[in-house]
Amino acid sequence: MSSVRRSAPVAELVQQARDGQPRAVARLISLVEDRSPALREVSAALREHVGGAHIVGITGSPGVGKSTSTSALVSALRAAGRRVGVLAVDPTSPFSGGALLGDRVRMQDHALDDGVYIRSMASRGHLGGLSATAPQALRVLDAAGCDVVLVETVGVGQSEVDVAGLADTTIVLLAPGMGDGIQAAKAGILEIGDVFVVNKADRDGAQSTRRELRSVIGMTDRADGSWKPPILLTTATTGDGVDEVVEAISDHRRHLEQSGELTRRRLARIRREIEALALTEVSARFAHVSADVRLDALADQVLAGTSDPFAAADVLLETL
Amino acid sequence: MSSVRRSAPVAELVQQARDGQPRAVARLISLVEDRSPALREVSAALREHVGGAHIVGITGSPGVGKSTSTSALVSALRAAGRRVGVLAVDPTSPFSGGALLGDRVRMQDHALDDGVYIRSMASRGHLGGLSATAPQALRVLDAAGCDVVLVETVGVGQSEVDVAGLADTTIVLLAPGMGDGIQAAKAGILEIGDVFVVNKADRDGAQSTRRELRSVIGMTDRADGSWKPPILLTTATTGDGVDEVVEAISDHRRHLEQSGELTRRRLARIRREIEALALTEVSARFAHVSADVRLDALADQVLAGTSDPFAAADVLLETL
Repeated sequence: MSSVRRSAPVAELVQQARDGQPRAVARLISLVEDRSPALREVSAALREHVGGAHIVGITGSPGVGKSTSTSALVSALRAAGRRVGVLAVDPTSPFSGGALLGDRVRMQDHALDDGVYIRSMASRGHLGGLSATAPQALRVLDAAGCDVVLVETVGVGQSEVDVAGLADTTIVLLAPGMGDGIQAAKAGILEIGDVFVVNKADRDGAQSTRRELRSVIGMTDRADGSWKPPILLTTATTGDGVDEVVEAISDHRRHLEQSGELTRRRLARIRREIEALALTEVSARFAHVSADVRLDALADQVLAGTSDPFAAADVLLETL
Repeated sequence: MSSVRRSAPVAELVQQARDGQPRAVARLISLVEDRSPALREVSAALREHVGGAHIVGITGSPGVGKSTSTSALVSALRAAGRRVGVLAVDPTSPFSGGALLGDRVRMQDHALDDGVYIRSMASRGHLGGLSATAPQALRVLDAAGCDVVLVETVGVGQSEVDVAGLADTTIVLLAPGMGDGIQAAKAGILEIGDVFVVNKADRDGAQSTRRELRSVIGMTDRADGSWKPPILLTTATTGDGVDEVVEAISDHRRHLEQSGELTRRRLARIRREIEALALTEVSARFAHVSADVRLDALADQVLAGTSDPFAAADVLLETL
């Protein structure tokens, strides 16, 4: 780390990233991803440079074509002259590092385009969930001048909902035959979608999935009642319908700005992030209390029936 | 609450629950679920009575037949003379309260059996996730003398992994054609399964799903390397193969006890629970700090670019 600090101080890296140097962007993301000592310094150096990017979350169950759709969106956004960032959050899995490459091959279409930053990130710490460092990586891509940052997660439950917590606009992907109303309602994804896309529209059942979705969404209590989420059809492999998705993203952005919802969402996001960072620090402090009130000792007492979780939590809190 | 306290103090309710009175069990679960003032008292009163139940988590994607399988397992366990608890964790959804009833209809087969406690619980607080109060409800069912408690969640990503965190033994359900290796690996469910069940085995592809699963599991790094998870075939609608699942659960229980893994898992679970309770309390304290360092004010500063999340978290921590 110290050699990095000597060769390129954080402020300089941030300037280089803002000048469009991909290596500086990659370096900054590595610094936040590795939770390096420079993490706080990076966070502070980005302060004045964030807020310009429109963060778009892309979510949906496995098999709906998330990676292909993300790649098609990148093409359409680039054709419209936008600078694009992609943050693909991968699961921690025995296959990390290469075997999920199938997903990324399509992304390589964009590997040589210097208007696109693509970054994969392992979702450490919580299986299937979003990486704790994703918000920091988004701040880097934002500060680097991306107009739009696409956040794609592996389609695994909680991450489907988490992605909405990171995004200004959330796109929920479905595929024909997978949009069954009750299952979708169970997943909690109807409430979080700002734009719904039925991908693989060249297959049977796309129209009926759209109809079903429309009636279920009509029954859904949405936080932002003034926005009526469109339901679009795409075939991401051919690009059919993808321009309409880009248009819907722009429409939603306009709605967010005019309604004040953009500020509300961003403030809520920042509040959650601050609190999560503070609680992570508290958790670290709990790990360093004296031996007799350590979590291990408290858990032993609960297992032995001489304490219970609430009483044990009280003991832990007294150490603060 | 006060009328309850007068008519049946917590200690009395606990005694009634241990005597097999379903109403007392239901009342205790309501007390912990409502986070009533009596919650801590209930937790303390259960101390010496927990640890006897074998907690079995049942997880899998939507559509694999979780509810039917749970019901079939209840029948098989009852036939073997075991007292059974079922905790079904439902999502917070616009349909809560009734429209997901389809899932529960099958459970009504067991509604008149006084050796079965069935409890549904909304997963409040986190969409699609397990209720924060699920561990407390499990303690009640445990103390009430259940030999086995089945925990079933809606099959939504993070909850698939969370259920493993609550259970001694985790059953992962799949269905033919849904067991595709890479998708399963993405979901992170291969690592958490102690027993794998390919349900709907009367459909095409069950054997090939089993084969594929076996080869992928063989490549998986498992926390408990000394247990080789069986992969069983069932048709839950007819009950075919369900006895073998009950047997596999018993085998795994024996393995857990003999290897010391049962104690390790339970201590890890208790540690997480204590820490989560303590952090929830810290979070509540953050909500009551003075106005100028409140989360709202800190978030405003980050949005305005005069602070950043790490610096804001430090301010919040100073209030402790």
